[in-house]
Amino acid sequence: MDPPKFVIEASEAKRLAESAGLSVQELLARLVPGAQALARPPISKFSVAAAGLGPSGRIFIGVNLEFPGLPLHHSVHAEQFLVTNLSLNGEAELVSMAVTSAPCGHCRQFLQELRSAGDIKILVTSDKQFRRLSDFLPQRFGPHELLPLEAPLHLEAHHNALSLLGDGDGDDAAIQKLKIAALEAANKSHAPYSGSPSGVALLDSHGNIFRGSYVESAAFNPSLGPVQAALIAFVAAGSPHYHNILAAVLVEKADALVKQDHTANLLLHSISPNCHFHTFLSHSHPPSS
Amino acid sequence: MDPPKFVIEASEAKRLAESAGLSVQELLARLVPGAQALARPPISKFSVAAAGLGPSGRIFIGVNLEFPGLPLHHSVHAEQFLVTNLSLNGEAELVSMAVTSAPCGHCRQFLQELRSAGDIKILVTSDKQFRRLSDFLPQRFGPHELLPLEAPLHLEAHHNALSLLGDGDGDDAAIQKLKIAALEAANKSHAPYSGSPSGVALLDSHGNIFRGSYVESAAFNPSLGPVQAALIAFVAAGSPHYHNILAAVLVEKADALVKQDHTANLLLHSISPNCHFHTFLSHSHPPSS
Ligand SMILES: [Zn+2]
Ligand SMILES: [Zn+2]
Repeated sequence: MDPPKFVIEASEAKRLAESAGLSVQELLARLVPGAQALARPPISKFSVAAAGLGPSGRIFIGVNLEFPGLPLHHSVHAEQFLVTNLSLNGEAELVSMAVTSAPCGHCRQFLQELRSAGDIKILVTSDKQFRRLSDFLPQRFGPHELLPLEAPLHLEAHHNALSLLGDGDGDDAAIQKLKIAALEAANKSHAPYSGSPSGVALLDSHGNIFRGSYVESAAFNPSLGPVQAALIAFVAAGSPHYHNILAAVLVEKADALVKQDHTANLLLHSISPNCHFHTFLSHSHPPSS
Repeated sequence: MDPPKFVIEASEAKRLAESAGLSVQELLARLVPGAQALARPPISKFSVAAAGLGPSGRIFIGVNLEFPGLPLHHSVHAEQFLVTNLSLNGEAELVSMAVTSAPCGHCRQFLQELRSAGDIKILVTSDKQFRRLSDFLPQRFGPHELLPLEAPLHLEAHHNALSLLGDGDGDDAAIQKLKIAALEAANKSHAPYSGSPSGVALLDSHGNIFRGSYVESAAFNPSLGPVQAALIAFVAAGSPHYHNILAAVLVEKADALVKQDHTANLLLHSISPNCHFHTFLSHSHPPSS
């Protein structure tokens, strides 16, 4: 069997399904046991994998990540990794997914940020049949309680219209590049509840840049931090060691109600002690200007 | 109508229910609108209150707390406040509760740490009838997946057998007292998944001490930090201003996989900039010694 990958192209998904005599949706459950090897759970030692199907026919994998030495709220669940993987690849919806254990309440809540969340079909691999997310979280609390119906949800286009404060003279070229990447990520951030979008860009020792956009949950605590989002991009690209992260830039609003600065630095310093971390402040410019 | 309180004694609950021609359980829904005034949600401005009934016949109130300038995972939900309020008052179970909005997935998950969680009866006040928690989180992920059946759950007795490293000479009397209180709180902490119990004690300007025990969730992210737990005790005692917190002590294990130190300091510094914060390390001594 091939080593597990984080994205399976539609043509390959079709070929794999056909050769196993399955539909692409039925294939999802076959993929998760192998994908568990991609998880990084040094605290729980409990490897979780999720395989999700997008409308493009591509299959996306998500796994759990844990960070020793810090509070557990830094942890990334397989379902959150999966949704971030969709976002990284421009997939606008999650049609169905298979996962190795029953999604926890935190994930059932996080998934509510997607349009038509209730219709996502979920198969727990120990179970026989797909059920809708609305069956896993009946009487849901979600974006509909707090946002106008037309407000963009997660995986839909966001244009936060942030620009950086200060002229950036004196930054070296690498930091300049990271700053622009982090600003782009902040402009795509889904943060309608606090109005505090943010983004992170990481630079590794090979010169690669990884972006992460902060994703807010209507229920607050299940929100995904911008460093976590960027680390998902880092892991999904196959990067083995966090300590290869040499520099990181966070962009957030100067007057934000929610500030990532210290917490982002804490996580990065913990996984890559020599990482240079910089925060740059932005403001939103009015739509008319 | 009387001003709302965080604990209503059994005799008073009975009297209030009788005078309204209701059962004590039916009274719960009547109490939450008034209790919403006790919430402290400066970010969302969305006040949530929960009223819960314990086997002793007492009614306990919980409200949401939010902390501007920090990531949203610091937030305390009304249901988490309620369960911590039960713990502060030595109530071992939650029989039923009424809450002003549908519990989010994070809370449905946090509540799984209680014995017989599925049987807790929940009424969303916009709804007509109580439903069981198992109906709100079917196919739950919970402690049963990870712990032996006889392991103590939250609200059951914990004896973590921690003792402090170092002799404490040179600490002033106030810090000595806080250290002992924080150690007691750490010894009651429910942290079976990471093996990293911790506790916090706060001192206010009137000389009052408030304890908080860290509570872990099987799903990791919904865990309640020890500072949050101590702040619930502070708020439940009617204390108006966080900046009256003058000193705080955290006790956690020297070799812990989960460390609260920096994050506890960040939260305390943010709500009470002049608070003196100290961390003391402990180790577990073997049961035989
Ligand atoms: Zn989860
Ligand atoms: Zn909640």
